[in-house]
Amino acid sequence: MKAHLTRRYTFSASHRLHSAKMSDEENRRVYGKCNNPYGHGHNYALEVTVAGPVDPRTGMVCNIVDLDGFVEREVLERFGHENLNELPAFQAAVPTSENLCAEIFSLLRAGFHAAPVEKVRLEETMLNSFEYSDKGEVPR
Amino acid sequence: MKAHLTRRYTFSASHRLHSAKMSDEENRRVYGKCNNPYGHGHNYALEVTVAGPVDPRTGMVCNIVDLDGFVEREVLERFGHENLNELPAFQAAVPTSENLCAEIFSLLRAGFHAAPVEKVRLEETMLNSFEYSDKGEVPR
Amino acid sequence: MKAHLTRRYTFSASHRLHSAKMSDEENRRVYGKCNNPYGHGHNYALEVTVAGPVDPRTGMVCNIVDLDGFVEREVLERFGHENLNELPAFQAAVPTSENLCAEIFSLLRAGFHAAPVEKVRLEETMLNSFEYSDKGEVPR
Amino acid sequence: MKAHLTRRYTFSASHRLHSAKMSDEENRRVYGKCNNPYGHGHNYALEVTVAGPVDPRTGMVCNIVDLDGFVEREVLERFGHENLNELPAFQAAVPTSENLCAEIFSLLRAGFHAAPVEKVRLEETMLNSFEYSDKGEVPR
Amino acid sequence: MKAHLTRRYTFSASHRLHSAKMSDEENRRVYGKCNNPYGHGHNYALEVTVAGPVDPRTGMVCNIVDLDGFVEREVLERFGHENLNELPAFQAAVPTSENLCAEIFSLLRAGFHAAPVEKVRLEETMLNSFEYSDKGEVPR
Amino acid sequence: MKAHLTRRYTFSASHRLHSAKMSDEENRRVYGKCNNPYGHGHNYALEVTVAGPVDPRTGMVCNIVDLDGFVEREVLERFGHENLNELPAFQAAVPTSENLCAEIFSLLRAGFHAAPVEKVRLEETMLNSFEYSDKGEVPR
Repeated sequence: MKAHLTRRYTFSASHRLHSAKMSDEENRRVYGKCNNPYGHGHNYALEVTVAGPVDPRTGMVCNIVDLDGFVEREVLERFGHENLNELPAFQAAVPTSENLCAEIFSLLRAGFHAAPVEKVRLEETMLNSFEYSDKGEVPR
Repeated sequence: MKAHLTRRYTFSASHRLHSAKMSDEENRRVYGKCNNPYGHGHNYALEVTVAGPVDPRTGMVCNIVDLDGFVEREVLERFGHENLNELPAFQAAVPTSENLCAEIFSLLRAGFHAAPVEKVRLEETMLNSFEYSDKGEVPR
Repeated sequence: MKAHLTRRYTFSASHRLHSAKMSDEENRRVYGKCNNPYGHGHNYALEVTVAGPVDPRTGMVCNIVDLDGFVEREVLERFGHENLNELPAFQAAVPTSENLCAEIFSLLRAGFHAAPVEKVRLEETMLNSFEYSDKGEVPR
Repeated sequence: MKAHLTRRYTFSASHRLHSAKMSDEENRRVYGKCNNPYGHGHNYALEVTVAGPVDPRTGMVCNIVDLDGFVEREVLERFGHENLNELPAFQAAVPTSENLCAEIFSLLRAGFHAAPVEKVRLEETMLNSFEYSDKGEVPR
Repeated sequence: MKAHLTRRYTFSASHRLHSAKMSDEENRRVYGKCNNPYGHGHNYALEVTVAGPVDPRTGMVCNIVDLDGFVEREVLERFGHENLNELPAFQAAVPTSENLCAEIFSLLRAGFHAAPVEKVRLEETMLNSFEYSDKGEVPR
Repeated sequence: MKAHLTRRYTFSASHRLHSAKMSDEENRRVYGKCNNPYGHGHNYALEVTVAGPVDPRTGMVCNIVDLDGFVEREVLERFGHENLNELPAFQAAVPTSENLCAEIFSLLRAGFHAAPVEKVRLEETMLNSFEYSDKGEVPR
């Protein structure tokens, strides 16, 4: 039987929504004020869910200390207090929260192995959130 | 690969729980103080989840402006600052949050086409919430 | 030296904003949708603050059990699951949250004596709150 | 078509993380400060989700009063204001939140029959939560 | 007797903390990652408190619609979705939340007259907030 | 003109309410389940407010890094993941939240000098909080 563990982190960053694949006018129409040349920012909240059997020796799915260390090094250090548009990950992709969430999900799936990463949820504000999960990869 | 976008809205309304299919005594027993003749009210919070591939041009599942416009017109205008018992949708059905959530899910599934509506979650208070999703339609 | 203890309660009620001292047109202009004839409702959150010295025997300003009992009997029973417009307190006064907050402050000041009631704060929604305190009675 | 109803409860308890299956040194390494001999505590928040068709007579999945009564008697009375390490359920198992969540899920599945219990979610702090669901029992 | 009304607003903006009155090295030492050249951002929450007697005709301290209109025009339009460092208000002052809060307090005190503005509170994140009030102007 | 800066911290601890100045029976009557011999616990949230003029060079009341360092060393290290009843501060005093709040206020007033500490607020649960401030020392 599987248990799910969800851990919440926060970081602040800035971005400007502008797609190289659209004209300036289309960018303004699609993104509105989010296309302002100087950008704006958010306090992002990130929730990472891992799932697996509970280890009978420790009573844990995985040690939160390990998850914290990985997320600190690979996610918070990389995106916290940064302008997302300047980072390698967003040279070809628009730094929307959909794309930032997908990027974080990929980093976790590729590098964290203490327990399977099942879902990543990213809150842009109290009113918007975005989610990627392993259940999203196959058609339902 | 699919992403999920969830957007949160709030509105206030009043209701009285009373079922025409039950006697007055049974109504009082089933609904308790919620059966008071003059009704009471709530600040409802509504979360709408749409799911789909991320458009590589815009980096979005769908434009939140479109979802906001639809929900504003079809949900918040219809139910906000109203007595639910007086509305057409609740002439035959009791305005419980289960039924209000189902009604909102139907409105969204029928009329919003910019991205598939996967789930509707309605908080009646900080302690109660209700959910309908497209995964609920088939037995598991 | 004084300590302050604040306790939070919740209750749901409905109201319609309509003032007998204004014309129907003025009522609609001042209150907007809150003047709808059938009313609407809220989940109110109430915070009561008492202040006083800490009793060295118990380490408490007052026993929360006593405050809970009073608020349950005199406030939550009176206003919870009710239509405020139907209650004696709002026959002459409009059931705005300012007036509801003042009414609750009066009930507490008149009847709760285990510790001085310093402040009452009433949240109508997550975005609005109202406050009465003993410091509001004298000009500053 | 199924609806989901989720209800939130809170209780406070204390625990010490120490596994009889590990040496003292391994316990300190795995649990860190949570292995302190005198224990520490949490305000747990518990969310119970039941799912099923909406009864057309009552407009409800199940009566929340019934769920509240069961949870009050079988969960909050049992674990609230207790030191988890002293309870029968944690003589053989470490009182991690994974194990506490599994124990509560078992109690609900075994004893609550008014509607199927689909999921139990337990928040240890604002930053950590744990979840068991009937979907976790079979491989995906 | 005075009542207090508090209204909550949110907006997103970006900033870089850098003081022209300090060397680059001192800037890095004082502001840490907040001195990164490309800036970062926040979801600010703003709470405005006005205080005054309750109008017996309307039951209100002031009409929230008037406060919302003023804050929308003079605060949210000015700072929302902007890079604070580019705005006139922050050419001579560092756009810390202390200075942003002071600027908003000045705008409200100078231009909003429907009720006395008593306090402005600005949350930079869930963990930090800043406050200016009319009680702060005189020594205590 | 003064600004206020409030910073929020969290820690978990356990306690048992039992006063050596009362009989066993009186302890059970006053504290109820909080008098259980094995204790229980909480996730405390601590808010520290400092107040003072804004430094025109830095735009800050004080550097949050300094406040964080002090609170980490002198408060969170001391009380986090501990059983409060075992600590020197609570050998003579009952570890109620009133007394814990007073103890933290004293530690901050005695040892933090980068800006005046005006207020300490301690949340025991989402529903209870306690506060000490420098305004509480003189009668009003």
